[in-house]
Amino acid sequence: MVDYHHLLKLALEEAKKGLSEGGVPVGAILADQEGNVLGRGHNMRVQEGDPTIHGETAAFKNAGRQRGYKNKILVTTLSPCWYCCGLIKQFNIGQVVVGESVNFKGGQDWLVEQGVNVIDLKDAECIEMMRDFIANNQELWFEDIGE
Amino acid sequence: MVDYHHLLKLALEEAKKGLSEGGVPVGAILADQEGNVLGRGHNMRVQEGDPTIHGETAAFKNAGRQRGYKNKILVTTLSPCWYCCGLIKQFNIGQVVVGESVNFKGGQDWLVEQGVNVIDLKDAECIEMMRDFIANNQELWFEDIGE
Repeated sequence: MVDYHHLLKLALEEAKKGLSEGGVPVGAILADQEGNVLGRGHNMRVQEGDPTIHGETAAFKNAGRQRGYKNKILVTTLSPCWYCCGLIKQFNIGQVVVGESVNFKGGQDWLVEQGVNVIDLKDAECIEMMRDFIANNQELWFEDIGE
Repeated sequence: MVDYHHLLKLALEEAKKGLSEGGVPVGAILADQEGNVLGRGHNMRVQEGDPTIHGETAAFKNAGRQRGYKNKILVTTLSPCWYCCGLIKQFNIGQVVVGESVNFKGGQDWLVEQGVNVIDLKDAECIEMMRDFIANNQELWFEDIGE
């Protein structure tokens, strides 16, 4: 049995790294079905001036080229935006684990409709971190989600 | 009036550059509403071992941080996959111009349902280039679209 809470802890470490760098604190992990980490990363909009690197795409990118994602697990501190939901659908990532969807909810329900397994851990630390970040960085946050 | 055919020609140049590098030949341009190029790029899965760089995300990335995409134009040689459609939806890109959707069609119809303007130029050169590429590189192509 894969310990999703442990993987979320690693994703949260990534998010905090992003925060300490002055960036958007969303972190993610791509793992195999045994829970081994294949890639990890965090949002790099500020750090690299690159609007394509969300937490989820960073973890996906850092896992390198893979042949098939059906048996992979994507763990993210925040409910994935539509961009990251598109990634999940296109590459048929089988399992998604979400830290929280209180502060933002993109296409999470749509993913479920598409047949993706989604677990929302409703993690208190993820909720608090993101709530504080959005309250203190509204312009950056809305830029990151295109609003 | 923006000349979409001219912008598609530039996107096709990008796709051909990708092909000459041994990569997946999909190229794209992000332009402003006057047709000025903000970013251009092509798929870099093979060249950089990076599965997140599709033509569309490359152009988006290379345009750097932008505040709002409603009045931007994304021109791509091939109908965008779900990953790139997610990008378009999340960032509210107002206009999408597609070179062709004969060899592959991702979420193009879904984008229209979401209120995105999509024009399909049904370009003969794009169709031929992609048909040849897929016929000769099936494994790489299916890897790139997660199948």
